[in-house]
Amino acid sequence: MKQIGVGVLGFGTVGAGVVEGLLKNRDLMAQRLGVDIVLRKVADLDITTDRGVTVPDGILTTDAASVLHDPAIDIIVELIGGTGIAKTFMLEALNAGKSVVTANKKLLAEYGDEIFNAAAANGVDIYFGASVGGGIPIIRVLREGLAGNRIETIHGILNGTCNYILTRMEQEGLPFDVVLKAAQEAGYAEADPSLDIDGFDTAHKAAILASLAYGFPVPMSSIQVEGIRNLSGIDVQYASQLGYRIKLLATIKHHDSEVEVSVHPTLVPLTHMLASVNNVFNAAMVRGDLSGDTLYYGRGAGRAPTASTVIGDIGDIAHNLALGKPRYGRAINNANAGKIAMRAPEAVVSRFYVRLMVSDKAGALGQFTTILGRHGVSIQAASQLEPISPEAVSSGFVPVVMLIHPTPDAALSEALEEVLQSGVIGEKPVKLRVL
Amino acid sequence: MKQIGVGVLGFGTVGAGVVEGLLKNRDLMAQRLGVDIVLRKVADLDITTDRGVTVPDGILTTDAASVLHDPAIDIIVELIGGTGIAKTFMLEALNAGKSVVTANKKLLAEYGDEIFNAAAANGVDIYFGASVGGGIPIIRVLREGLAGNRIETIHGILNGTCNYILTRMEQEGLPFDVVLKAAQEAGYAEADPSLDIDGFDTAHKAAILASLAYGFPVPMSSIQVEGIRNLSGIDVQYASQLGYRIKLLATIKHHDSEVEVSVHPTLVPLTHMLASVNNVFNAAMVRGDLSGDTLYYGRGAGRAPTASTVIGDIGDIAHNLALGKPRYGRAINNANAGKIAMRAPEAVVSRFYVRLMVSDKAGALGQFTTILGRHGVSIQAASQLEPISPEAVSSGFVPVVMLIHPTPDAALSEALEEVLQSGVIGEKPVKLRVL
Repeated sequence: MKQIGVGVLGFGTVGAGVVEGLLKNRDLMAQRLGVDIVLRKVADLDITTDRGVTVPDGILTTDAASVLHDPAIDIIVELIGGTGIAKTFMLEALNAGKSVVTANKKLLAEYGDEIFNAAAANGVDIYFGASVGGGIPIIRVLREGLAGNRIETIHGILNGTCNYILTRMEQEGLPFDVVLKAAQEAGYAEADPSLDIDGFDTAHKAAILASLAYGFPVPMSSIQVEGIRNLSGIDVQYASQLGYRIKLLATIKHHDSEVEVSVHPTLVPLTHMLASVNNVFNAAMVRGDLSGDTLYYGRGAGRAPTASTVIGDIGDIAHNLALGKPRYGRAINNANAGKIAMRAPEAVVSRFYVRLMVSDKAGALGQFTTILGRHGVSIQAASQLEPISPEAVSSGFVPVVMLIHPTPDAALSEALEEVLQSGVIGEKPVKLRVL
Repeated sequence: MKQIGVGVLGFGTVGAGVVEGLLKNRDLMAQRLGVDIVLRKVADLDITTDRGVTVPDGILTTDAASVLHDPAIDIIVELIGGTGIAKTFMLEALNAGKSVVTANKKLLAEYGDEIFNAAAANGVDIYFGASVGGGIPIIRVLREGLAGNRIETIHGILNGTCNYILTRMEQEGLPFDVVLKAAQEAGYAEADPSLDIDGFDTAHKAAILASLAYGFPVPMSSIQVEGIRNLSGIDVQYASQLGYRIKLLATIKHHDSEVEVSVHPTLVPLTHMLASVNNVFNAAMVRGDLSGDTLYYGRGAGRAPTASTVIGDIGDIAHNLALGKPRYGRAINNANAGKIAMRAPEAVVSRFYVRLMVSDKAGALGQFTTILGRHGVSIQAASQLEPISPEAVSSGFVPVVMLIHPTPDAALSEALEEVLQSGVIGEKPVKLRVL
């Protein structure tokens, strides 16, 4: 049986998971793929810390160059992360004619164009399944299974930390800060959680999914990103009373010559499959013109799930190489570069949830609904709800929650600004999207 | 750009969907795959009925042989169905060196071994993504994305007709017969619905999934199959009261040297993702040793969704062929033939739901619990519930519903038979599995 050599760069959590999986399931994969995948080398600056996996002698090294240029290594697995040395090593691997597997979403979201071009120029494979969705094979599905579809929409819960926090906020009625602290103590959130909770991790993943679906590089700067840091428990509870669950959602939509990509805390109806995705689990719902709605669910992070996808990618390349050559050509392509534009955030049309603290003086309700109407904002439902807690309400104001019919973001923002200026509400309005 | 020719056999619902999709999204696929997929011929005995798609002149033919032996056709798409002429044509295509795409679950479940061997002998690809799950790329995920995993369990809702019937039974409190009739009128059930409602369609799909996951041909005769024809609305309602939803579930489990494959109406906890899969939608939850739980959801049948998967398969083969050769080797393999056995149905251990109509005489409860105990059957919870309707209860008997701790099927069956013989219950007990 033909042997394909693998070198791993980065022996952290995911790296150790990949090494463990490759060693454990080597025979099984050989049986399935008809090729023997051999772990040749693992490089990391730190090769003394116990990673919970027994590596055969002679595999661990601190010398990345010896991995990148080992002629017995066909596939380089980049699991260092970040956009520094990881980028240098990846380009070096591609230029040395090695195929590459990576889970590095930040690198692909920010330098994908350069990296995919290098893979193409060298005629090698680059697989990045684990960059989005951890153990969920969403990249593969989008690239291959749904290849015959025009992708109409993608809605994704792509960050486990945020989903864990939102789940506990809803189920236990706790405020954001308290749950974040608990998540940090439980190891579900980083000491510096901003990449997750401010939505940028989700945005990186959304950029990769949109680039793959539409064939052009989606610039990070064009994605409107709103995290969950300022989300109030009050709105989580009101949403629940209205039959919704708030999720940090990546929204990708195709409109003829434009694509809309954004990240927002979004009200999802309880009857929607995405509402059932709780705790650290991730999911993406993809609507194709032929397939209709399809959903992919699983663990979005973690050692073994991420390793599962990395190893699936290694298996693909190994199978290709065993047949004689890489299968280059199904990575992200730029066929639509310059042909599709990003929709401006202000122009995005959505349903909205709005919470106002309205003066309980007579006429207040009429006053702000008149302002909304003048801006073409149409109210689908409005109700004055019981205050969640007495302290949450300033005296003389009552909470009014509204669901707004599909409206351009800009129109609603202007209307709410005018309502605020009018003095009829007591604090800045809360505006959330509704799926 | 290299052109790859496609010939379609069978211009029925799915065939027309594939033809429409290939014509509509040809440019898009060329852009994504770097190969131009050209529909060359479509054969059917009936080429005059309007199928809702405009086919260019010269494509439609009643002569299948002219498709099978056209040198400009590289890929044959078999959408005739059944195990008769479809099998003949498929073998003829493989032997003529054509790669094949099929959605024919019955043919693969019953003659898969012969067909995969013919593909191997001829060094061509055979793809069968649409044989299970319609628009859900579950076959691809199992074959490729999860290739690095030992598959521990698969639980699937794989028949849209049954799921539609069960959803309406629960939501509207209607009996099976009434909903079946409505489903037939709405076109969601066949005039002869037995293949669906008796569970055999689900069993065909389970056989294919298990064969793929474990590398040996799973004989249909070894699968215990129970459909939903005899399912009482009473149990649907009681299950709901207990926090469960009844689904027709294919269960596939790996135990060392044995694999368990069965099809049963099964109580699924409402908090489980599979419980949220309603109406005609299908889903499969796959647990890998690395990935953990992953779930795939979408439309399990229908013209466009099934075409989506067929076209994804065509795209794969076309991409392979454009690179020089088929990618044979990732179909079902028989590496474990003779090494893994099917677990006998009696030996399968499961949690169970049991409903007994128990005599309301003093001591009856003690009598049957004693019998259960003697057979090692342990009761997790038991309650005497309100009768769903007065007519449903024979005078002198009260409904008792129990959840049973994991027990071998045989032990519970024997215990319940003894309870029935003892005269303490008024009718045959109801026994359902619990996930």
